[in-house]
Amino acid sequence: MLLLFVKLCIIIETAALGAAKKFRGNKMKNVIVGQSGGPTSVINSSLLGVFKTAKDRGADTVYGMVHGIKGLLDGDIVDLSARIKNDLDMDLLKRTPSSFLGSCRYKLPDIKGNEDTYDKIFAILKKLEIYAFFYIGGNDSMDTIMRLTDYAEKIKSPIKFIGVPKTIDNDLAVTDHTPGYGSAAKYIATTTKEIIRDGLVYDYPVVSVVEVMGRNAGWLTAACALAKGEDCEGVDLIYLPEVTFDVDKFVKDVGKLLKEERSVVIAVSEGVKVADGRYVCELSDHVDYVDAFGHKQLAGTARYLAGKVAEKYGVKTRAIELSSLQRCAAHIQARIDVTEAFNCGGAGVKAAFEGKSGKVITLKRVSEDPYMCITEEADVHLIANVEKKVPREWITDDGTNVKPELVHYILPLIQAEITPLWINGLPRHIRLHANSLKK
Amino acid sequence: MLLLFVKLCIIIETAALGAAKKFRGNKMKNVIVGQSGGPTSVINSSLLGVFKTAKDRGADTVYGMVHGIKGLLDGDIVDLSARIKNDLDMDLLKRTPSSFLGSCRYKLPDIKGNEDTYDKIFAILKKLEIYAFFYIGGNDSMDTIMRLTDYAEKIKSPIKFIGVPKTIDNDLAVTDHTPGYGSAAKYIATTTKEIIRDGLVYDYPVVSVVEVMGRNAGWLTAACALAKGEDCEGVDLIYLPEVTFDVDKFVKDVGKLLKEERSVVIAVSEGVKVADGRYVCELSDHVDYVDAFGHKQLAGTARYLAGKVAEKYGVKTRAIELSSLQRCAAHIQARIDVTEAFNCGGAGVKAAFEGKSGKVITLKRVSEDPYMCITEEADVHLIANVEKKVPREWITDDGTNVKPELVHYILPLIQAEITPLWINGLPRHIRLHANSLKK
Repeated sequence: MLLLFVKLCIIIETAALGAAKKFRGNKMKNVIVGQSGGPTSVINSSLLGVFKTAKDRGADTVYGMVHGIKGLLDGDIVDLSARIKNDLDMDLLKRTPSSFLGSCRYKLPDIKGNEDTYDKIFAILKKLEIYAFFYIGGNDSMDTIMRLTDYAEKIKSPIKFIGVPKTIDNDLAVTDHTPGYGSAAKYIATTTKEIIRDGLVYDYPVVSVVEVMGRNAGWLTAACALAKGEDCEGVDLIYLPEVTFDVDKFVKDVGKLLKEERSVVIAVSEGVKVADGRYVCELSDHVDYVDAFGHKQLAGTARYLAGKVAEKYGVKTRAIELSSLQRCAAHIQARIDVTEAFNCGGAGVKAAFEGKSGKVITLKRVSEDPYMCITEEADVHLIANVEKKVPREWITDDGTNVKPELVHYILPLIQAEITPLWINGLPRHIRLHANSLKK
Repeated sequence: MLLLFVKLCIIIETAALGAAKKFRGNKMKNVIVGQSGGPTSVINSSLLGVFKTAKDRGADTVYGMVHGIKGLLDGDIVDLSARIKNDLDMDLLKRTPSSFLGSCRYKLPDIKGNEDTYDKIFAILKKLEIYAFFYIGGNDSMDTIMRLTDYAEKIKSPIKFIGVPKTIDNDLAVTDHTPGYGSAAKYIATTTKEIIRDGLVYDYPVVSVVEVMGRNAGWLTAACALAKGEDCEGVDLIYLPEVTFDVDKFVKDVGKLLKEERSVVIAVSEGVKVADGRYVCELSDHVDYVDAFGHKQLAGTARYLAGKVAEKYGVKTRAIELSSLQRCAAHIQARIDVTEAFNCGGAGVKAAFEGKSGKVITLKRVSEDPYMCITEEADVHLIANVEKKVPREWITDDGTNVKPELVHYILPLIQAEITPLWINGLPRHIRLHANSLKK
């Protein structure tokens, strides 16, 4: 009788295992995920979305590439389960700025003539028994997914390649917006409100120039427009890189405002250019340094313009660069952004487990009011290397402000909050390698 | 019988009124309050402490000087009850950055030879039937309280003058610390943690130089040391203005770190000076502008030092100026700081209503562990125009970091949080004049 019971148990258990296997697509799956390009406040929520959804859907090992595809090539790979161990780790991961796995700006070479690089990658993936490969990044990083997809097709590899979007710049094609943008916009708008209040503290004229990130697209700078409301005067002038900048007209416009207002606040993108194509900061005679990639350090636009105003009108000016805090101020996250970032990661896993490849997860706004967004999938070839700018019709004709349509577009993306886990007075984070990345 | 009952009621009511009058010091009192110098995140909590405590203790009208003593002289005075109407207004006031009443940097002239100015002030105060005058400010503003106290004594005026301390710089004498410092330190430490994580995102060397406010005292820059902890590597080098800066040694020290670490993070005060007394930012050949007060714009120290490092080692560098956000980032307030700021305002009223004058409210740390602080009163002559620097023994011998004693001193001051009132995705503020300060 006891024996029969044990046998029955074994039968039931086997049946259950079979069901699980079926749920898991009939065989065990390892997946790998990497982060690439500049970080956002919520890039780790997308990582969590990939990790948790893959585990929930029956993946065996979720590997992480340390410093993206470059780390993969160098064999720098971790088992994420050993690093994200429990619910607390997951909640810390959501709130941790910078890319948990580290990032890279490495772009894969053309397939033609570089087959050895691709063969090496696919050999590593095969050895790790990888079913699907996820890459969280912007339009440069989607180039990696596109090339790997193309090579997989060429060599008839069954590995699935899926892109998960992120960028504070919001310059990705097809998707309504990108995870990371909402939190950056919330940080920028919050800070701008504070700067506007601060600018009114004294009884003499002050001109504040706030410099916002965005080399080619003005989405981030446009977020300064959100400051205006029942309790705030808002910024006076907003300059996006989509419109050619005219220094003389700028100085005149500020002069007009100074006749009416005590405190003038201006938002300007680091990427604004004059008619001959030079960046405004390049007009300064002060030579700033050039970074390791040959990118000219653009910081200095606000300083240059503040100097012009001080020179012309003799008023107090302030140049405020929001700097890298725009991409790492995780103490201000938009909850909607955290959720959408997680969902994009999770939807990526769902797509791969349904057998899809060569896709980038996108967000589609299915309702304006109330705001509702769902995930979709787009062909990576439509997204890689394409840059989405602010439509000219969302900028005022004179190019010194944005239209209500743009505010209406951004506002839902900064909604709701997620509280930092404050420990001993500071937000708690989680690290991949405690103390080993730095002595 | 009914008549007797009514009579009895009248007697009881009269007695109650008498008790209330006694509680209010036997006669009606008007008070006036102003804010002066640079704002802090909690300067409006001190304003609320004065307003609410004065009303609770029976003051009739609480007047506010708009733009401090300068506004008083110009007749720019408001009745605060008309502006702070209910509990919601009070909670918004606590969370609003910048000085609600506006501020000034106006210093009263010497009494001798300028009696007309003082007579004018006292005439205005007499006309408003002012019992007590409260001034929320730093050591410059306490000079105003000192002079008014001295003049009141000279002309035998019964008006009480009380100083309520504030400054993010924490450079006030006698008091353990100043309201405003804790929240600024919390903002600086939080931001520094985020910058440290962000600096480790790539796999190549990066040197980040974070520039912190503080012309003569290094208290704010020292707050960067709080970033170090179980989850954070901390900053590598900290330079306060209390120690003479050596550019060559700095470059060498960074070089040593670059041999061991991928990401080097440095905190430097805007006020660091080299041996010949020049500010480090003055070493640059780039001429920044001079503000309306003839103060040289010091912003540029981080940029100068980052340039030196880039030049020498060819690594990627970042110069990050925390700028005026240090004094206005009200979205990060330390609750302990908000409470102490309120209490200092309230204790000022209590002192005045007890008949005291010529006092500044100070904070005394009565217990280290657990941290406990009480308010006391100090003679204004001991505080006005005196600057408290970081003790040399709290800085390491080589002047490149702070000692644990300094961290131990700051840590209790950044504890606990107060959540912004998030409305439509942004922190809500309250304004004195809706839309009238700016068209």
